[in-house]
Formats: sequence, structure tokens, C-alpha cells
Amino acid sequence: MTRRSVSTPAARGSGSQHALRAANVRRIEQALRATGAMTQSALARTTGLSNATVSNLVRVMVDEQLVTTSATTSSGRRAVLVQLAGGSRRKVAVGIDIGRGHLRLVVVTPAREVLADVERTLEPGHRAQDTVAIAAAVLGDVLGDLGIDRADVLGCGVGIPAPIDRHTGRTSHGAVLPEWSGYPLREQLAAGLGVPVEVENDANLGALAELTWGGHGDVTDLVFVKVASGIGAGLIVGGRLHRGRDGKTGEIGHTTILEYGPVCRCGGRGCLEAIASGQAMLALWQASRPTQPATAESLVRHARAGDPTAVRIVEDAGLALGRVLGGVVNLLNPQLVVVSGPVTGAGELLVDSVAAGLSRFTSPVVAGPTRVTTSALKGSAEALGGCALVLRGAGDDAWASVG
Amino acid sequence: MTRRSVSTPAARGSGSQHALRAANVRRIEQALRATGAMTQSALARTTGLSNATVSNLVRVMVDEQLVTTSATTSSGRRAVLVQLAGGSRRKVAVGIDIGRGHLRLVVVTPAREVLADVERTLEPGHRAQDTVAIAAAVLGDVLGDLGIDRADVLGCGVGIPAPIDRHTGRTSHGAVLPEWSGYPLREQLAAGLGVPVEVENDANLGALAELTWGGHGDVTDLVFVKVASGIGAGLIVGGRLHRGRDGKTGEIGHTTILEYGPVCRCGGRGCLEAIASGQAMLALWQASRPTQPATAESLVRHARAGDPTAVRIVEDAGLALGRVLGGVVNLLNPQLVVVSGPVTGAGELLVDSVAAGLSRFTSPVVAGPTRVTTSALKGSAEALGGCALVLRGAGDDAWASVG
Repeated sequence: MTRRSVSTPAARGSGSQHALRAANVRRIEQALRATGAMTQSALARTTGLSNATVSNLVRVMVDEQLVTTSATTSSGRRAVLVQLAGGSRRKVAVGIDIGRGHLRLVVVTPAREVLADVERTLEPGHRAQDTVAIAAAVLGDVLGDLGIDRADVLGCGVGIPAPIDRHTGRTSHGAVLPEWSGYPLREQLAAGLGVPVEVENDANLGALAELTWGGHGDVTDLVFVKVASGIGAGLIVGGRLHRGRDGKTGEIGHTTILEYGPVCRCGGRGCLEAIASGQAMLALWQASRPTQPATAESLVRHARAGDPTAVRIVEDAGLALGRVLGGVVNLLNPQLVVVSGPVTGAGELLVDSVAAGLSRFTSPVVAGPTRVTTSALKGSAEALGGCALVLRGAGDDAWASVG
Repeated sequence: MTRRSVSTPAARGSGSQHALRAANVRRIEQALRATGAMTQSALARTTGLSNATVSNLVRVMVDEQLVTTSATTSSGRRAVLVQLAGGSRRKVAVGIDIGRGHLRLVVVTPAREVLADVERTLEPGHRAQDTVAIAAAVLGDVLGDLGIDRADVLGCGVGIPAPIDRHTGRTSHGAVLPEWSGYPLREQLAAGLGVPVEVENDANLGALAELTWGGHGDVTDLVFVKVASGIGAGLIVGGRLHRGRDGKTGEIGHTTILEYGPVCRCGGRGCLEAIASGQAMLALWQASRPTQPATAESLVRHARAGDPTAVRIVEDAGLALGRVLGGVVNLLNPQLVVVSGPVTGAGELLVDSVAAGLSRFTSPVVAGPTRVTTSALKGSAEALGGCALVLRGAGDDAWASVG
């Protein structure tokens, strides 16, 4: 975060008033950074400051060349549009998604324009310190290509496929990346990348990205489901990312659906993940064609072509997922369920199966349509969510859906 | 809500500034009504106004005799404590809980003192209009006894055991009270009681009451489970009552746990409610002793005395409940699960079974203790929650846990 103090005579008062005003200026800067431009009224609503306070502070900030204003209309009335002064330097936010086999890095402007979106393949079982080095190298390359100074990176939001303890910032029980368990990822990444870093569960970032870039309109309650090696969900509840008691939320992959089913890597049995994850699907797919390589791509391709085994594998996974999601919908009554991951290439086959499971296992009491859709953001959702985390201010997880 | 305008010369300004100031005064009044008394700093945090604004407004409100101030200390520092002026008239909030067989009415002061807590038995299958008349009569009696004028009732929060559509305010699919489906309860109650009325799902109100009166300390994520004729849950998520897309949340009673189990009244099969509700338990209890009346009281008494059938019925219900709650904990990672309802008389037997089910079906990934406890508020929780709804301002569902 940039922290420029306001020092015009108009802003001076007693010490505490001065500090208060500076804090309010930062709130306004933060709000503008998240959205690019806002009317004064919208700024007041967003920051909780009064219209009069916003108006006074904006005047000071214009004097300070922190912001520029222009005339606009809002709901048919004249209004003042405020935006951060461009200055000569372009600020950006960086999002990084780290998976079992890939690292994705996205760079966006505060106005949410995507400047770069690159992916690197990672070795299975990659060690955390090697991955930090790769992330640093990729960031250096991308910033170099864009001609952006590291000092102009507002921050970097990093997603990993593991629960993050919100108190310690460490990965816990490193499910999908066992080698990473307990590694001080945030500190090491911050040191390696040379920018402020926040680490968050990847499905949580996906949910944030859907809210910002998903094009879902005015959604306040959304479930983002990531079906990859594992299965996890990110929850937007009442317009905010839900983090729970200590950040370990959305673990729908470990909800039992078959009490005496296969043992799951988590120590449970018959977990959704042991039945419907990408890994579980590929194990079934491999068993049905022992001599050929089983990849998500080949499973999806055969399913789309109508191969009965491939269809059954995808359908059964979708139905199982829908069953667990039925419980989630009974509980949370969301507007929307977004399914993401490589297997979403199967398209309607998967979505229809999830919807069928959802319909069967959602109580008729909770009537009305909970939409099920695949993510239009594809593999970029998590990294984009990392950018959203930075732009919206890591400490402040309350915001409205924005168009 | 009382709406007294501020009209001292100090408060006057341009028209819009005046309106803004009056709106801010109302926010402060509302905050004080919810908590009884607060420091100026706490008021600023709660209302989102700046400290300076709060300080100015409090000065005006003291002049207007709306509030009184006194010196106090907060975190070891001197602070100004603000409270609503007592005036000559005592304001109260009313909460009413309507169940299949009872109506409970609670009256509290804005300082959260309970002035009255009465219960009336209702005929099974009672019709909504008759119940409205009963509620009006009980309220009249209680206010008469207390010597409180109806005009001093800030509002009445009413809980019923059905999902409430948050858009229409009507009960939907009137599960537990089928006779009530679609009845314009809020309008009829408001007319009958002669006070402002909000209707809310009873488990939601229970969750609110636990936040305010439960003595759980600084809890932000809480699941209140009501095991009565049906099974429902109220959710506090991130410190706020979760209402979802259209208010139909917490329907854990209709999560499938036995795919080809008994048909449920909701149209599902093998729902938790068809297996572990009070009604389901009593049906099992009755079948085991066909010649004797099966009541919750006799089931609980025999279970406590070690009768193997009674113990098994309670334990199995607890395990099934714990299983569904395991999914809820995987998803929401709450601090606390509070179980309420007549069968909680079984005490540790029930709680231990719920905890055992929860432990078995919560993923080890979501490590750490989610406490399971019975409600200390007993049968008053829902009606108290109705009062909390009124005191905290029906339109504003964001608040912090308060001691």
C-alpha cells in the first residue's frame, strides 16, 4: 500500500485530527484502488464516511494531486467522479496460483485490466523453496516485459490448494502439497518476490475472482467449487469472502458420501474427494484403459465423444458433487454455484450431472433456482482472485459485487 | 424506532447537511439501543462514523437530552461513556416464538434486561389467525402487568419454524406449520399487535440470541441447531445473521443421510429430519412401548436412567445430527455449535453423541476444536432472538458479538 501523508495547511489540526484525516485519506485511496473510479456518494457508502467528509477530503486530495475529479451523472443526477491520479507510474496488482503441476501469474491494473497472464509447468512434488524461486523469476520477466518497476506492485495475492491457517498464515495439513506443510510461504515469497504478499486458499481466490470478473451481476452468495487433484470450495457469503474460525473453510471435498467407501488422504473414508476428484476420475479412467495414458484431456475428449465409460465417470463425479452441493445449498441458499477445474472441459455433461445431483439432494423446501455454471475464467480464476485480494485491500474482506 | 429530529442551532446547516446529521444521530441512537451504553470510540467503530463526528453529535445529543455521558475507562484510558437518556418512559422490545404447540413471549429493555418471559400452550394444528389473536392477548396482558404503553414497544420480532422468504416476508412451503403456508403473517401480526413486526425463522432468532445472551464471548461464526418437531439451523457467519439468496438458510434437516431411507415430509428421502427429529425419535420411542404415551420428557427421563432403547434412540439421533454437522463444519469452520430443543434435556448423552458424529465426519484437515454445547437459554432462545432482532435494528444485520 502506498502511504502518502496529507500535509496541506487545510488538513492540519490537532495531532489526532491530523492522524484521523490521514487514515480517512487512505481509506479513500484504498476504495479507489479497488474500483478505478467512483462518485463521491459511492465513496461515502463504501468507506462509511459522511458525504461531507468525503467531499472535504477529496478537495484536499485534489490539491495534493492524489486524485482527479470530473463531472458525471449517477442515477440521472449530476455527480463528481473521483479517480486516482495516474501520475507517471503505473501501479499493478499481481496474482499467483500455485498448483501441483503449474504456476500461473496474472498482472492487472487497479482498473482491473489484465496486462499479463502466464503459466509455467511445475514438477510434481515440487519443493516450496524451488517454487518461490520460479515465482520470483517469472515475476521479474513479466514486469520487465511490461516495463513496470517492482516498487509499483501494490501487492501479490498467492493461492495454493491447501487450507491456510488465518492466524499463522501457514498451510496446514498440506493436503495437496504435502511437502509444503508448515512452510512459512508468505514470508519466503515476500522476501523472494520483493513485494507485499498475502497467501490464501486457491478456491477462496477463485470465489473472489468470480465476484469481480465473473460477470454474474449483483451476486452476494456464491459457491466456487474447484475440482482438480482435490476438491475444495470458496464461499462468498453476504458479499464477503467467508474465512471462518481459522480460515479452513469450504472443505467440501472431505464430506462423507460413502461411509465405508475408500480411505481418503485426509484420514476420512468415502470423502467426496476420494470419489469425484480429478485424481479419482483419472484412476477410474486409467483402470478402464490400462495400456494408455490417462489424462484429464483424454477423459474429457472421450466423454464428449460419447464413450460410455468416460461418460459414466464424469456423470458419477458430477452427481456425487451435486449431492454434497445439495447440502451446501440447503445450508447457505446461494444464488450461484460455479464449478471450475480441468474436467469442466466436459461442459454440459458435467454441469448437467452436478445440476441433477443438486436437484435430487436439495430440499424442495429450499425452492427456487440455484444456478450451476462453469467458470468463464478457466485456469485464470485463482490468480485473478489473488489480484482481487490485493486491490480490495487484504485486511478488508467486505465489499459489494461490482460489475 | 423513535425518530426525534435534532434541531439545535448547532445542528442546523444546509438542508442536506441537516438531513445527514439527523441520519447520523439515528445511527448512534440505534447503536445505543442495541447495547445500552458505549464509549465514544466504540460508537465510532460501530457506526462507521469518525471519532470527531461522533464526538460532535454526542455533544448535540446531550443538549437535546437524547443521551447522557459519564467518565469511564477503556483499555486503561479515560473515555466517555454514552447512554440513551432514560426519560420518563421505558422502551422495550418484544420477542415472540410460535411453535407447533406453544407461543412464548419475552419482553426486554434496550439494556437487555428481561422483564417478562411467558409461555402459552397452543392446540396442535392451530390456525394462523387464531394464533395472532392469542399473541395480541398475551402481549396486552404482559404490557398491562408491566405498566408499559404499547407506544413504547420498539418492535416485535416473531420466530416461526418455517423458512421465511426474505423478499415477500411470507412463510414458504410451511413445513412444520402447513396451515400457515402463504399467510401474510407479518401484516396480520402488526395489525393485531399494534406494534412494528419482523418475522424471522426461529432457528435464525436462536442464533441471534446465542450471540447476544449466550455468554459465548467473542464468537463470530456460530451454528444454532434446533431439534424440535423438525430440525433447522440458524447461522452466524462472520458476525452476521446469514440470510442467503432469499432467506431459506440452515435447512440441515433436509440433508440426505440415507439415500433410500424413509420419505420425508419435504419430498426428499432419508433426510436428517426423517431420522433424528423429535418427531422421528418419538415415533421410535412409541413403537418400542406401544401402550404408553411417548413424550420427549419420558424419552429423556428413560435415557438418563440408562434404558437401552431410549439411550439408543437419543444416541443415534445425535450421531446422525453430528454427521450432517460434520459437513457444516467442513464448510463453515465455526467456533461453536449450539444444540437446542426439548431433547437437549438428555444433556451429555446427546451432546456426546453429536460430538462423536461430528468428530467422525469432520475432516481431520479442518483440525481444531469446534465446541458443541446445549443452549443455556433453553426454550427462551427464539423469543429472545426476536428481541435481539428489534434492538439491533431489523434492517441492519451486521454487528459484533457483545459481552
